[in-house]
Amino acid sequence: MRRNQNQKDQKDSKDLNDQKSLKEPGDRKEKKEKQPSAEKVRIIPLGGLDKIGMNITAIEYNNTIVVVDCGMSFPDDDMPGIDKIIPDVSYLVENKEKVKGFVITHGHEDHIGALPYILPQVNVPVYATKLTMGLIEHKLKEAGLLKKTKRKIVKQGSTVNLGEIRVEFIKTNHSIAGASSLAIYTPAGIVFHTGDFKVDYTPLFGDSIDLQRMAILGKKGVLAVLSDSTNALRPGFTPSETKVAKTFDTLFAEHTKSRIIVATFASNVDRVQQIINTAQKYGRKVIVQGRSMVNIIDIATKIGCMKIPDGTLINVDEMKRYPDEQLVFITTGSQGEAMAALSRMADSTHKKVIIKPGDAIILSSTPIPGNEKAVSHVINELVKKGAKVIYQDTHVSGHACQQELQLIYTLLKPKYAIPVHGEYRHRLAAAGVVTDLGIPKENTFLIQAGDVLELSESSARIAGKVTAREVFVDGLGVGDVGNIVLRDRQNLAENGIILVTLTLEKGTGHLLAGPEIITRGFVYIRESADLMEELHQVALKALENCEKRRIREWSRIKSEIKDSMDSYLWKKIQRSPVILPVIMEV
Amino acid sequence: MRRNQNQKDQKDSKDLNDQKSLKEPGDRKEKKEKQPSAEKVRIIPLGGLDKIGMNITAIEYNNTIVVVDCGMSFPDDDMPGIDKIIPDVSYLVENKEKVKGFVITHGHEDHIGALPYILPQVNVPVYATKLTMGLIEHKLKEAGLLKKTKRKIVKQGSTVNLGEIRVEFIKTNHSIAGASSLAIYTPAGIVFHTGDFKVDYTPLFGDSIDLQRMAILGKKGVLAVLSDSTNALRPGFTPSETKVAKTFDTLFAEHTKSRIIVATFASNVDRVQQIINTAQKYGRKVIVQGRSMVNIIDIATKIGCMKIPDGTLINVDEMKRYPDEQLVFITTGSQGEAMAALSRMADSTHKKVIIKPGDAIILSSTPIPGNEKAVSHVINELVKKGAKVIYQDTHVSGHACQQELQLIYTLLKPKYAIPVHGEYRHRLAAAGVVTDLGIPKENTFLIQAGDVLELSESSARIAGKVTAREVFVDGLGVGDVGNIVLRDRQNLAENGIILVTLTLEKGTGHLLAGPEIITRGFVYIRESADLMEELHQVALKALENCEKRRIREWSRIKSEIKDSMDSYLWKKIQRSPVILPVIMEV
Repeated sequence: MRRNQNQKDQKDSKDLNDQKSLKEPGDRKEKKEKQPSAEKVRIIPLGGLDKIGMNITAIEYNNTIVVVDCGMSFPDDDMPGIDKIIPDVSYLVENKEKVKGFVITHGHEDHIGALPYILPQVNVPVYATKLTMGLIEHKLKEAGLLKKTKRKIVKQGSTVNLGEIRVEFIKTNHSIAGASSLAIYTPAGIVFHTGDFKVDYTPLFGDSIDLQRMAILGKKGVLAVLSDSTNALRPGFTPSETKVAKTFDTLFAEHTKSRIIVATFASNVDRVQQIINTAQKYGRKVIVQGRSMVNIIDIATKIGCMKIPDGTLINVDEMKRYPDEQLVFITTGSQGEAMAALSRMADSTHKKVIIKPGDAIILSSTPIPGNEKAVSHVINELVKKGAKVIYQDTHVSGHACQQELQLIYTLLKPKYAIPVHGEYRHRLAAAGVVTDLGIPKENTFLIQAGDVLELSESSARIAGKVTAREVFVDGLGVGDVGNIVLRDRQNLAENGIILVTLTLEKGTGHLLAGPEIITRGFVYIRESADLMEELHQVALKALENCEKRRIREWSRIKSEIKDSMDSYLWKKIQRSPVILPVIMEV
Repeated sequence: MRRNQNQKDQKDSKDLNDQKSLKEPGDRKEKKEKQPSAEKVRIIPLGGLDKIGMNITAIEYNNTIVVVDCGMSFPDDDMPGIDKIIPDVSYLVENKEKVKGFVITHGHEDHIGALPYILPQVNVPVYATKLTMGLIEHKLKEAGLLKKTKRKIVKQGSTVNLGEIRVEFIKTNHSIAGASSLAIYTPAGIVFHTGDFKVDYTPLFGDSIDLQRMAILGKKGVLAVLSDSTNALRPGFTPSETKVAKTFDTLFAEHTKSRIIVATFASNVDRVQQIINTAQKYGRKVIVQGRSMVNIIDIATKIGCMKIPDGTLINVDEMKRYPDEQLVFITTGSQGEAMAALSRMADSTHKKVIIKPGDAIILSSTPIPGNEKAVSHVINELVKKGAKVIYQDTHVSGHACQQELQLIYTLLKPKYAIPVHGEYRHRLAAAGVVTDLGIPKENTFLIQAGDVLELSESSARIAGKVTAREVFVDGLGVGDVGNIVLRDRQNLAENGIILVTLTLEKGTGHLLAGPEIITRGFVYIRESADLMEELHQVALKALENCEKRRIREWSRIKSEIKDSMDSYLWKKIQRSPVILPVIMEV
């Protein structure tokens, strides 16, 4: 089954060769570059350097800006209610006329997820390989932006011209098909962006990473490399996807009597294809569960990036027509996400699939940091129902370890190294790898989002700083929730809220109604009637004090009430709920 | 340096031998037990079986109940504002006259942390080894319970009589000194509780686990074993504490020019002693940072469980008198806890210690599931400041792996196995280990909190169910916050709150003031003035509708306002804040 897309790929690249890709883009410039050029290229990351996510980097030469990727990131625990985080692209908006396009390395959310939010601000063409574009188009359609956005599918091995910059898409390996490294040709030299990558000598589908092209570029002379640092703390080499294929084969051979349920990342199209192929080999029908899984399989099949033989997929309602040993479920929820299909199966809230003793459940993923507890919960619930849960050797990373970084840097031999895509400690580890290879420390840059790194053959410096920050998306609101609102939300979450409402007489300031005390998220009212009455008395007393001291300004009355209730509650039960006095006047 | 407490330990146990401990407690009963006894013992866990934490198990025979441990657990992410979780001990309260005492295996929070909350409900004596009692007494003093609580320090190897039950404390190894297994002698047979344990053949301090005693008990006949399942998913043997000692020695020898900062669990008294000994060997002064670290060192030193040579500890203000290479900091914060000393150093908010390039920082711990992101944050901030952060081979677990469980069960050869102390999947894995040893599946119990497991030589069954649930502690409030309050808090956290206040005229129901709209944690008001005005109009319109339809009941008016704002907001920005209409009448 391996390399079943190979023929197609070869055909693709043949077409391409007939076109123009081997005309060696950038040749004209390279002659100039033989002697140190004083031309400068500016590398400006707008995200992606403090945590994994929200990748977006502007490459600027003279009057041209090309933007590599446009990703989102997911909120941390201390950002309640936030759905997504997107980059602030003020710099691109301010330089709109320079921006020639987005070049996208691959179709993961942290590389494409912000496009529907950013394209309305900076409406320029998007360039990507076929599957990547399929996923982008799905997003744009949902956002009603499909017709407004110029798009161009680029084949790996070919280039696109964007103002004074040319970009070559180069085949790489990652946990999604169509992943590309980018060689960005500028008059100041070649900037090579690895994108997310690993070196898989034995990929299940398609070709291995194009190491030859990298070697040729390296020989020619590369100015700078921006490299994926995700696994830079890990020595050695990331295992091949073939390893997972072998595990699947063994597991399917072992569990001939069981229903098999496999949970994995929907975005890992090759993995999903692999499960389908294994199912077919063992004569099982496949049922797909989870909205994102259904979507991606749909998109990938339509554009020919996934091949599913007719009759393999069945609807969940058809499952009773087949015995357990002829069924495989492919499902979302490998990260323990509360609403995903596997979690609903585990919690017995899935409408169609009821877990039973003997089910074999394969988690084909590792928990992303922060998700460990949620994944544990799902596993516990599944094993309580008698299922067997398997999660050893069922996943390999899509990112390069130290030895792969050594290989890439040795082939590309750049003057400057810029580890990206990682927390600081990951990028620091990558810098260590690069230093060991002989790239001087002063030529290795651990930059921050917003830094303007200006490079030429003869000089390198941080030449300035542009706006770079996180913009929160909550529902349909973009940027209307910020840190102050989040701090309020956290306060509300920690201790709840107490409202004190009262109506005063216009002119006299006499109390006409209230103070009424209403709480949410504070305590069980029924069991705390005494406390409620005490709070009422505290508010009344604060009002009386105001009257005695002839305090009439509402703001002072409010803060008297707030302060006295606050200190009463702290003394009594050591809690600080949000206290909100509301005064009406009639 | 190893085993420097050995002499003392031997002396202790000699004293004991002179007393009574080798009189073989339970001998009298055992003759009866030679032929299958129909006498029944009831094992009733009140916590500790769904997650790691809140360990408490009642052992009941006839009119005697002995309670093993009384621990708390920490809240999950979905319990905002909750400080601790303690068990519901209604069953003990209802059977107060039967309860003869708490026997405590060791001094960790998940085994002693609930005592200050439970002792006022069930005031019975507490039995524990010296260090464990020191830590308990510190808690009781803070809670004003020290004088009200009967306490007895028990030496390992000796027994205490509690009604019809006798309990023998047996030396074991764990990540805190004084950890004990308990042999609980009842007329129905011996129930053996391992407590938290590992098998350390080469402990740094004190003796190895008392395997001989376990073998003798096993030979005599053990009815049931309750065993620590924390590491039951891991094959092999947990490494000895000696391994960490070697790492420390190497690290101190390597970093002769640096300031060294070691973060570890305050409760790991042996580890702290080890760091102090290594510091002394390398001629470094020790500075202790973090309240819990200072407390535990203070307690352990006072009662002689920790030995610190005079002049070794210095105050943080004295540090300027010593060069960096003569200093070691021992600090809290190895789990990335936001307020702990190491986190404050990392975030530059520590008042005295400023991290600088060259500092060597050793994390002597592994992140507890759920803390990974916080630990990553601390590491990133430290390396950004130029410090070297070391976390490989700097920690070993305090819990037994599969091979250690095999050893213990082979020595004890019980009739029944009851894996405890772990999530379901851990306990299931332990059950698998036990099955492989030949204990029949029907004699292995994966029970739940509240189950009444009734055992005799001839029968075993779940004989009933008692109350067992989590009680939340928030500030000084115990049990006044429950699931409904938590759900409110989560709603508030996700979307914030909108208050709509209005004043109506008594009798007529005419609107006198309002509707006024106030929000917290919703959106930035200044940037959302239009939305606020729209919401005001929506509320007004709802009121008008009520008037038209002659709706006068406040509850219906409120729900009209709430519903119309709710659907307006969902359509407009897809958010569902808590909406709280408040009506006043004058």
